Amino acid sequence: MRRAVVTMLSLRAARAFLRPAVRAPLRRSVQVWSATESPQQQKPKKKKQQQKKQQKVQKGAATQASDSICSASEDFSQWYSDVIRQADMVDSSPVKGCMVIKPWGMAVWDGLKDSLDKKIKKSGAQNAYFPLLIPRSFLSKEAEHVDGFAKECAVVTHHRLKGDENGLIPDPDAELDEPLIIRPTSETIIWHMFQKWISSHRDLPLKINQWANVVRWEMRTRPFLRSSEFLWQEGHTAHATSAEAIATAEEMLDVYADVVENVLAVPVVKGKKSAIERFAGADETYTIEALMPNGWALQSGTSHFLGQNFARAFDVYYQNKEAKRDLVWATSWGVSTRLLGALVMTHSDDAGLVLPPRIAPVQVALVPIVKGAEKDPEGTQTVMSLVDKVVDECEALGLRVKVDDRENMRPGAKYFEWERKGAPLRLEVGPRDAASNVMVVASRLGGEKQTIAVDEVPSYLKQRLDEMQAKLFADASQRLSDRTIDIDTYEDMKTRIANEDLGFFRVYWKADDANEKAIKEDCAATIRCYPLDAQGDLEGKTCFYSGEPATHVALFARAF
Amino acid sequence: MRRAVVTMLSLRAARAFLRPAVRAPLRRSVQVWSATESPQQQKPKKKKQQQKKQQKVQKGAATQASDSICSASEDFSQWYSDVIRQADMVDSSPVKGCMVIKPWGMAVWDGLKDSLDKKIKKSGAQNAYFPLLIPRSFLSKEAEHVDGFAKECAVVTHHRLKGDENGLIPDPDAELDEPLIIRPTSETIIWHMFQKWISSHRDLPLKINQWANVVRWEMRTRPFLRSSEFLWQEGHTAHATSAEAIATAEEMLDVYADVVENVLAVPVVKGKKSAIERFAGADETYTIEALMPNGWALQSGTSHFLGQNFARAFDVYYQNKEAKRDLVWATSWGVSTRLLGALVMTHSDDAGLVLPPRIAPVQVALVPIVKGAEKDPEGTQTVMSLVDKVVDECEALGLRVKVDDRENMRPGAKYFEWERKGAPLRLEVGPRDAASNVMVVASRLGGEKQTIAVDEVPSYLKQRLDEMQAKLFADASQRLSDRTIDIDTYEDMKTRIANEDLGFFRVYWKADDANEKAIKEDCAATIRCYPLDAQGDLEGKTCFYSGEPATHVALFARAF
Repeated sequence: MRRAVVTMLSLRAARAFLRPAVRAPLRRSVQVWSATESPQQQKPKKKKQQQKKQQKVQKGAATQASDSICSASEDFSQWYSDVIRQADMVDSSPVKGCMVIKPWGMAVWDGLKDSLDKKIKKSGAQNAYFPLLIPRSFLSKEAEHVDGFAKECAVVTHHRLKGDENGLIPDPDAELDEPLIIRPTSETIIWHMFQKWISSHRDLPLKINQWANVVRWEMRTRPFLRSSEFLWQEGHTAHATSAEAIATAEEMLDVYADVVENVLAVPVVKGKKSAIERFAGADETYTIEALMPNGWALQSGTSHFLGQNFARAFDVYYQNKEAKRDLVWATSWGVSTRLLGALVMTHSDDAGLVLPPRIAPVQVALVPIVKGAEKDPEGTQTVMSLVDKVVDECEALGLRVKVDDRENMRPGAKYFEWERKGAPLRLEVGPRDAASNVMVVASRLGGEKQTIAVDEVPSYLKQRLDEMQAKLFADASQRLSDRTIDIDTYEDMKTRIANEDLGFFRVYWKADDANEKAIKEDCAATIRCYPLDAQGDLEGKTCFYSGEPATHVALFARAF
Repeated sequence: MRRAVVTMLSLRAARAFLRPAVRAPLRRSVQVWSATESPQQQKPKKKKQQQKKQQKVQKGAATQASDSICSASEDFSQWYSDVIRQADMVDSSPVKGCMVIKPWGMAVWDGLKDSLDKKIKKSGAQNAYFPLLIPRSFLSKEAEHVDGFAKECAVVTHHRLKGDENGLIPDPDAELDEPLIIRPTSETIIWHMFQKWISSHRDLPLKINQWANVVRWEMRTRPFLRSSEFLWQEGHTAHATSAEAIATAEEMLDVYADVVENVLAVPVVKGKKSAIERFAGADETYTIEALMPNGWALQSGTSHFLGQNFARAFDVYYQNKEAKRDLVWATSWGVSTRLLGALVMTHSDDAGLVLPPRIAPVQVALVPIVKGAEKDPEGTQTVMSLVDKVVDECEALGLRVKVDDRENMRPGAKYFEWERKGAPLRLEVGPRDAASNVMVVASRLGGEKQTIAVDEVPSYLKQRLDEMQAKLFADASQRLSDRTIDIDTYEDMKTRIANEDLGFFRVYWKADDANEKAIKEDCAATIRCYPLDAQGDLEGKTCFYSGEPATHVALFARAF
């Protein structure tokens, strides 16, 4: 239990995270935090060597001032921005609150999408596509839903622009009879369609999934974490019974936890939301909550049991086996590009992005060190034929290898770039290595370079990648466990928050909306979830806040 | 050259195609047209048998009136609607001009997307994602572009709804300073970003692709063929030289033709657009044009050489190798869910959808004919163990097999459903077949059922699928060739159009915008393209319309 050793970020820096324009003015000298090395490894000497090496490499790459990455311990918010920018994952756009996902970020999202899509299909859901635009009246049909989304939706009012003396204006002659909103989520339009598709118990269960963009107007945005437009998948299912719907909502939460933990290597806590944190229109919201290195929680995926609320709103009945008419039961569930934010924060370090091998678009960056066919035909030939051989063998093992044969770029600059982009392993091979039939392997997580016989390279890489995946998950799990703290009194939690000693605060709790709001007001902590595996015997337990008999075990935290 | 034998649809029916609300009142008795059988095969006796069988199957499936498919020869428009509805590809939505793509349609699109995405990546383009919403001012920056799209775009003017006595209204306090439009295409926002990303020749070529939804407000819509929202990919590239940009535009046209011909089995003509048919903002538009069975052309994909127009509009310069500043050259290229319309029309028949094996989500529908484990444990066991064995072996060969083991549904109803959904092959196996170690294979294209020894089933299926893919392409190619007609005089073309004798009319042509518009006005034919492979020696050739010296060989046609 080494939690005291892990330095948490200042509350000030953490607060600044949600105010991108305001940089924390106070920069203090604190221990450099690294997401990928345990505190034991942070030996001063080694660190110094790394810094030296880093400086050398940066020099080789002819870096500019804008190439630098702020230290996470100094300014977590700036560090996050620097990492995703330097890894070339994302760029800001001219549209307020909307991001441009660049090829490296997109490749990560596409990889996650592939993994998740397979599991969603295995659960029996099929992909479909519903309109982007939703009639305004649909939103009002479910009372809580409209409260949740009407205040932050993009409204389409015209279908044409026309030129006037001031340039283009919405053409008054092309005003829509009924405004349309850009989907913030698709329950309403999908349940409108379900009404057409469901009439008998033979039509159930109906399981639909959609990969789509959605828009929720946000004033404070951060790439991946919170943006006005984001990409996601949304599953929507209809069932004959409440029990089957609940089982599906729980099954999909397990699917999410599986992918997030086993592909992204981000450990999560599975739980239920408190009443006031539920999705607008849900009877129960399940969630997976991750804990970021700055001690803040990040809601990473939700699965909702919608009861019969949407069936009632959209008049979706089915004829059961006894030929009686009954309302349908529902779920919906989604994860978004927000997961990329969790991924980046969980593993990366002050040298840039770190990608777990299973999600890395490039698992091994192979850098041939050659002078080119003109200057050194023989050496180049020897190296490149070895490269071809190793690439073929690696691909046969299912490894994703990228040969970085860009000309006019020095090896050091390539190393630097792949480090920032988080490729798990790097292979180097020059003419002398080739002559000795070896290659050099370097890990994104640091440590000594290894010289490996060419024949052993593919299996060695595979083993190293497996180890790295396991290590990243183990390290993050250790941090989650270290930072999950049992709290007996509200004063204790409040003091810890004031002292920037953040994490999941596990407490006995009596569900009470007013008390929950009062706590949020007082110290900005919210109930992240009631962990599914911790709701044991509450006999004799009392609420850490009200002193009344406890109804739940709750995790409180500051949250993104 | 059997073109006289192929009966073309009435012009009246064809016209009605673009006016979904208006059904052709005149129904005449004409030869039944089948997309998948050559006229020779249409022997009266066989047809009668088929009809009888069809009636029988329909009875078994407890069909309703709405289950019927109109004959293509009677009303092509209605036939198309019936086929896509009965195949469960698409449904109409409550949002004007927007469709719901149901799982079967989505699976076809996802399959096409996978094939095309691989080839796009192979061309060197990388996927990225740009905002859905585009500032109004961006649209105006390229003069022709704004003319092309301002008149049909969805305009977002508010970011919040609020309740008043009449329900929800756009909140006047949440009006945007500058309206945003939903992307009709993304040249403007992408070139805004390219301005940030390109500064040196080392940044070029830059090749980006995006899979996205777009909105172009349409008044007359048809699922897949023309809808206000549709799914597509849009590639955008930037180059140092004009020649390289042109080569890329041509390369991507080849990629499209390859996928459309070899995966969808839809033959196309590659060509260039006339000046007035070009994309708004392009210097040259390349196109692939397909010919539908009703004799109408369908533009199936376009690739644009944009010159320096967008670079100029968005100020995108690069420093060339001589350290001089120069404008960048551009291309863009896209195909959309419209291709699904081409796919459906090209191969389907009056029994429903026909899918070429390479795009079919289910290539083989396997229907076990069993009474269930309770009524016939032994027979069911024998059949199902054979089924498992064959499925495993087929999957090892890369075939997509779906076991249709739905209970409470008779085999005939299943056959009927898979026929309508266009699964290329069907396998049937009952206890007696299993006892003899055989299965029965039926083809979506008709003909005798074949009884095949179980051990030979997988390789037999593979071979039949290959043959079917080839046959569908060959039949459609024959039709394209038959219906490509050399025309010498305008009167000849006009008479043919009046006589409903439609197709590609190949003519010598002198490029002239006014004449082109006059022809469109007069007989509704447009220049589909100047075929790339037909622009040979024009010496001494004269325009079929003006009599002036010809500048091109052009294909005229009625078009969707």
